[in-house]
Amino acid sequence: MIRGIDHVAIAVENIDETLAMFKNTLGLEALHREVIAGYGVEVATIRLGPTTIELVQGTTPDSPITKYIEKRGPGIHHIALEVDDIAAELARLKAGGAELIDATPRTGKEESRVAFIHPRSTGKVLYELVQNKTPKR
Amino acid sequence: MIRGIDHVAIAVENIDETLAMFKNTLGLEALHREVIAGYGVEVATIRLGPTTIELVQGTTPDSPITKYIEKRGPGIHHIALEVDDIAAELARLKAGGAELIDATPRTGKEESRVAFIHPRSTGKVLYELVQNKTPKR
Repeated sequence: MIRGIDHVAIAVENIDETLAMFKNTLGLEALHREVIAGYGVEVATIRLGPTTIELVQGTTPDSPITKYIEKRGPGIHHIALEVDDIAAELARLKAGGAELIDATPRTGKEESRVAFIHPRSTGKVLYELVQNKTPKR
Repeated sequence: MIRGIDHVAIAVENIDETLAMFKNTLGLEALHREVIAGYGVEVATIRLGPTTIELVQGTTPDSPITKYIEKRGPGIHHIALEVDDIAAELARLKAGGAELIDATPRTGKEESRVAFIHPRSTGKVLYELVQNKTPKR
């Protein structure tokens, strides 16, 4: 079951500069920062309550975020939906004919389990499913 | 003060088709639907808790959403931040040198007061400030 929006991810060129903008312009600070080597990204979570903004910078030339920015420029990258049982949700989506980028969950930040749904199945928007180690809601 | 993410807006070509995708693929239903004539848009809010997904379809050829889709295609359009005092927030942003699309608030859905910040001031992402008639948080 989808419980709510976990985070909205923004692809950024420079995570430090974007964090400075969040602080100076919007008055919002980072809550958590982590390199996720398996995805070739560094992420910073903005402190905003149960639904956060997540800044994502590519750390390698072949990172999906590096490639996304080369093609489209920085901007909002995906919407992550918190689920209580990611395996059940993926099975339900697959049975319904949705195209999955990750057929089985991968490890995300803070030991979450995550999987992406292909934008072809969702009206051109990239959605991530997240099962948090400690549910937020 | 920014209280949290009010909604994430997705520019769509056909709100009925996107609502059908949300129901059939993601298992999520609409909570509210409204035409906002002043913006040339129809919006549908997806039931997701305090932070919602808002589908936005242009209703006129010169609607900002119609033009956005012509240029970039459908996709995630902006992030709306809920504030407790939009006039104070706009004054703070202006004093800090941020470029505002709306120097004074306009009327949004469900009698909210809304204003957009120019992406030039926020690292290429469009943010909306929303002061809800009934605060969500």
